[in-house]
Amino acid sequence: MLDFEKAGGLIPAIAQDADTGAVLMMAWMNREAFEETCRTGRACYFSRSRGKLWRKGEESGNIQEVREIFIDCDADTILLKVRQIGGAACHTGYASCFFRRLEGDDVRIVGERVFDPKEVYKK
Amino acid sequence: MLDFEKAGGLIPAIAQDADTGAVLMMAWMNREAFEETCRTGRACYFSRSRGKLWRKGEESGNIQEVREIFIDCDADTILLKVRQIGGAACHTGYASCFFRRLEGDDVRIVGERVFDPKEVYKK
Repeated sequence: MLDFEKAGGLIPAIAQDADTGAVLMMAWMNREAFEETCRTGRACYFSRSRGKLWRKGEESGNIQEVREIFIDCDADTILLKVRQIGGAACHTGYASCFFRRLEGDDVRIVGERVFDPKEVYKK
Repeated sequence: MLDFEKAGGLIPAIAQDADTGAVLMMAWMNREAFEETCRTGRACYFSRSRGKLWRKGEESGNIQEVREIFIDCDADTILLKVRQIGGAACHTGYASCFFRRLEGDDVRIVGERVFDPKEVYKK
């Protein structure tokens, strides 16, 4: 169904807010993460930096309830339509990880900050 | 501004329809493709299979006019908001490459087919 091998075991997974249509984030899934996502209905990714499954929201509580899963034409990328609990997908507290817009040679923050990461992650 | 090195020279680029909010496709950009996209205002990707720049629409005419470019929190993924000329991003003729939905163990075509690829690509 999905071609995990083509990309060395990991495929890109895009999360889109099912209600607003905002693209929230892009992360990676291995087969195990994909199967857990399908089984539980909660987005589970694979963290390349930590080298293990990343159950989105396990620390912050901001889980993603998966409404629909789409597969692209090449079967090597997936799109999740999710309900983002807490209103923010990004660990920086912004609703979307894509909170910065390119403007000429500058980058400007245009996203909406929903929470203060210091409060949420207690770090 | 973008971390091309982290992912071995290529970063994922998500194209979203600026008007409808539909996620159209995910492809890759190297630095050259990114710079060309910024310079021309038309989406230019890097084709991994062909090993060269892929000026989206160069064969079909279905170019993507770039309205906005967003950079994610890690600076290793970009989101393009585009106007998709011809109404279809996918080489199969569907509006979005994500035209198949997972339904249990089945995959069902739910997307809208805009053109017949045989007519467009003359192959």
